[in-house]
Amino acid sequence: MPSDLMISRGAALRPMERIAAEMGIGDHLLEPYGHSVAKISLDAPDELSDRPRARYVVVTAVTPTPLGEGKTTTTVGLGQAFGVLGQCGVVAIRQPSMGPTFGIKGGAAGGGYAQVTPMESLNLHLTGDMHAVTAAHNLLAAMVDNHIHQGNHLGIDPHSITWNRVMDVNDRNLRQIVTGLGGRADGTPRQTGFDITAASEVMAVLALSTSLRDLRERLGRIVVGYTKDGEPVTAEMLRAAGAMAVILREALKPNLMQTVEQTPVLVHCGPFGNIAHGNSSIIADRIGIRAADYLITEAGFGADMGAERFFNIKCRASGLVPDAAVIVTTVRALKAHSGQYRIVAGRPLPDELLEENVDDVLAGAVNLRQQIANVRAHGVTPVVAVNSFPTDHPSEQQAILDVAAEEGARAAVSTHFSGGGKGAVQLAEAVADACEEPSSFHHLYDTELPLTEKIETIARRIYGADGIDVAPAAQRQIDTYERAGFGNLPICIAKTHLSLSADPSLKGAPRGWRLPVREVRASAGAGFVYPICGDMRTMPALSSSPAAETIDIDQDGEIIGLR
Amino acid sequence: MPSDLMISRGAALRPMERIAAEMGIGDHLLEPYGHSVAKISLDAPDELSDRPRARYVVVTAVTPTPLGEGKTTTTVGLGQAFGVLGQCGVVAIRQPSMGPTFGIKGGAAGGGYAQVTPMESLNLHLTGDMHAVTAAHNLLAAMVDNHIHQGNHLGIDPHSITWNRVMDVNDRNLRQIVTGLGGRADGTPRQTGFDITAASEVMAVLALSTSLRDLRERLGRIVVGYTKDGEPVTAEMLRAAGAMAVILREALKPNLMQTVEQTPVLVHCGPFGNIAHGNSSIIADRIGIRAADYLITEAGFGADMGAERFFNIKCRASGLVPDAAVIVTTVRALKAHSGQYRIVAGRPLPDELLEENVDDVLAGAVNLRQQIANVRAHGVTPVVAVNSFPTDHPSEQQAILDVAAEEGARAAVSTHFSGGGKGAVQLAEAVADACEEPSSFHHLYDTELPLTEKIETIARRIYGADGIDVAPAAQRQIDTYERAGFGNLPICIAKTHLSLSADPSLKGAPRGWRLPVREVRASAGAGFVYPICGDMRTMPALSSSPAAETIDIDQDGEIIGLR
Repeated sequence: MPSDLMISRGAALRPMERIAAEMGIGDHLLEPYGHSVAKISLDAPDELSDRPRARYVVVTAVTPTPLGEGKTTTTVGLGQAFGVLGQCGVVAIRQPSMGPTFGIKGGAAGGGYAQVTPMESLNLHLTGDMHAVTAAHNLLAAMVDNHIHQGNHLGIDPHSITWNRVMDVNDRNLRQIVTGLGGRADGTPRQTGFDITAASEVMAVLALSTSLRDLRERLGRIVVGYTKDGEPVTAEMLRAAGAMAVILREALKPNLMQTVEQTPVLVHCGPFGNIAHGNSSIIADRIGIRAADYLITEAGFGADMGAERFFNIKCRASGLVPDAAVIVTTVRALKAHSGQYRIVAGRPLPDELLEENVDDVLAGAVNLRQQIANVRAHGVTPVVAVNSFPTDHPSEQQAILDVAAEEGARAAVSTHFSGGGKGAVQLAEAVADACEEPSSFHHLYDTELPLTEKIETIARRIYGADGIDVAPAAQRQIDTYERAGFGNLPICIAKTHLSLSADPSLKGAPRGWRLPVREVRASAGAGFVYPICGDMRTMPALSSSPAAETIDIDQDGEIIGLR
Repeated sequence: MPSDLMISRGAALRPMERIAAEMGIGDHLLEPYGHSVAKISLDAPDELSDRPRARYVVVTAVTPTPLGEGKTTTTVGLGQAFGVLGQCGVVAIRQPSMGPTFGIKGGAAGGGYAQVTPMESLNLHLTGDMHAVTAAHNLLAAMVDNHIHQGNHLGIDPHSITWNRVMDVNDRNLRQIVTGLGGRADGTPRQTGFDITAASEVMAVLALSTSLRDLRERLGRIVVGYTKDGEPVTAEMLRAAGAMAVILREALKPNLMQTVEQTPVLVHCGPFGNIAHGNSSIIADRIGIRAADYLITEAGFGADMGAERFFNIKCRASGLVPDAAVIVTTVRALKAHSGQYRIVAGRPLPDELLEENVDDVLAGAVNLRQQIANVRAHGVTPVVAVNSFPTDHPSEQQAILDVAAEEGARAAVSTHFSGGGKGAVQLAEAVADACEEPSSFHHLYDTELPLTEKIETIARRIYGADGIDVAPAAQRQIDTYERAGFGNLPICIAKTHLSLSADPSLKGAPRGWRLPVREVRASAGAGFVYPICGDMRTMPALSSSPAAETIDIDQDGEIIGLR
């Protein structure tokens, strides 16, 4: 098969006006950014509001291996398949982070014949939204330190500041730093650090905002630290939120692209999947829901992570109701969940994992069963998608279909990577079927419950834990947040995405364990509280041979080496 | 008069295709970015190469006060005036840095009825070029530290690393930092710092590149530090230059905008005016020179700074030959050069400076005389522009015209700020006249001279110094650079822009002083060596009441407070 970059470059692109027209979006709502990307005006949701509502499908997954199980390709392939079936499928995905493009991971435009194009636009700057998040975030950081430098009239306790700086680069040296060295004119020394831009609360705010006004207010509610009396200090108090909103005004507009089969794609925002909710923007979905027969939106990591937040954070803020959830699985992931194999990112799969072994697939299927249950716990109809690989054995794929049938879930094998939309037609039919079931969507918990109770609900019902162990420091933080008025926020549990438990080495569906809550933080602007359960890296690093080393331009000025 | 933002918003904009058409640039060379900005394809210079060459006019100034003397407004007004005269004037300016927009300075789109519009696009992200520079620069920084972390096979001496990180924000706390704290996985601790993005060598590289291939090669030549044996370590050796070029590929395309009078404006790159050459891009000028009757390009600070580098660095790299140089002056600047007044940025002018005082104007005119001579030292015809202010007295303006006449230079009072292009018609006529004089343009020095001799030539001939004093450490650096093969690069002297001398408090045209060369650095990628003569701040700070505090969006989603 040709490389992703070659497939992307070989794709026939339709003019953006035609892509938009298929969605019922007129030229006056489009702002071109080059010839193959356009922003959609914030007037679109209102203007489209009397159009029929699309079926709303979230794509989630089993607990993935470090390689990922092809959730983006499945999302893209499914959108394309609806096109094959004569329906309008619109895809909504997150914007990839640029840092990892030059690190170990490469880009995130999907892949093969199920990808968003031009992949170099998507994986590099796109329309600059990520950069705008960086700029808004770091302006606030500068204003925090400047406030202290200029006399600290708000009485900020420097040791309480939780507002790091951010940059969209993999740079381990920026994780822990001391700033403000030099002399009196160079600020006040303080230990702090950088996160990658996707981990910025500003990114989560952008993704969860329902309007420019809502964005402005959420930015104002961002808490950067506390006074010496323990009162929260907000971006509003620092008079930074207005300028931040101005910096983000264009970034709030979703980006329109297309797949290699000319299926419309809304690309917008890329919040982290562990310390944030890991879903693309509400504004993009609000537009897509009135501009398609099927709106296919992706949620980060497994159903215990991205889908749970999709249901309980994103849908709560948007008011949109999902009709079905696709759970992407692979033979290799279920084999890995048997606990018999070790998969490492950047290294080839172990040979023995490629041998036919239905028993291991069935052993690992316990994870799939739990993720099916996790979707059903929200009253949503699950559909299992077996993302097919050339190394799969038919008996192994059949075993997964059998497990799905045992669980009463629709299922299909999908060959979108090599076959594009045609390869996902069976999956699309299963999804269409599932959408006809009456929805009984509901949130998992009431936000009015105490924070601890909400955390415990997720831990027990979704992760399969026996309970939670809250460290004393974490309990003090919970008390602080409840006093500060953040007690009624929904929960975004920051834990590993590589296990249903908090221990990445535990595969399958671990039982007999308790969720350790080491620390609790609040994203008051984005509107959630996130307990930290494990080591969360918020700044990735480059490897010994970063992808950047092989990326270049050739003699014709064309990009080479991007993947 | 209405605010700049109101004037900008009230301007009738022509579609970008029409603006380009006036320049003879076809639609196929345009890439729209929203409706009021477009990028111009890198195919344009070749495609336009058989069109007649425009007159090439550089706008420079007397030594400015901290308020600036209206060089951008004059540049814009002059371009507009050629339109009034039925000629095609095209304006080329730098992209403003976003940091200062939220600091004390505000934006830099020109002002009044001589400004580039929409000013909010220009002053915020524009098409993301600045962000691309930030990303490319910081990828290289991450790869430097990663190289050391992964075993340091090149043998980089960590103490020799001169490659800081950059960010487009005013943030004093980032000036001096220690990175790599934490544990083994978090890098190697190292003292370093952040500069503002405009101060990045990548920005200077982008501005001086003549093609994508040239950009790629210049990036490869960037020196980040030295081995323990004193050999330069380049971006090429770190295998970073290819990825950097890919990140910058779109940023290399100039941006097309228009003035409030629909005059075409090329906005591209914004290199610092002291440690870098402070001129907009060569590629923009290469396009403009084939797309206008008059191409008006701006050079930073006074004629001793931006214009000298324009002649000796930019024109040397581009091969373009200037026809005239406009020297912008103001009554207030010449009064300040009498040494009798103190002007502070962000504070009102002293009352006594506003009183009629021809003697002080004449006393300060010594600076103007020197800057006229500085232009002539390159064989270029000077034109003095008196940028008119409502507080000027007619006798004072006349005194400046008289001084110009004494020096044999054309001169005109210009009221473009309040009057737009019509206010600059006399100036345009003087410029048109000057362009008819036969050009005898030549560089000030031969690059084959030793570095010290080149520095001394600029110091004596342009600054009026009696000589230079090279500190021992600086001499060692000069020796190192000459050994490393950088001896034949042109010179970019980093000194204060507030005096012809290296002491910002010395006004007029100081005599009887020597230029102290404290340190010498090389921008091997950009292609110049820069001696440091004084304290150069490469990261600005926020004031006690930053502009950011009053910038916001209103109930209609419109930006307020931007200036």
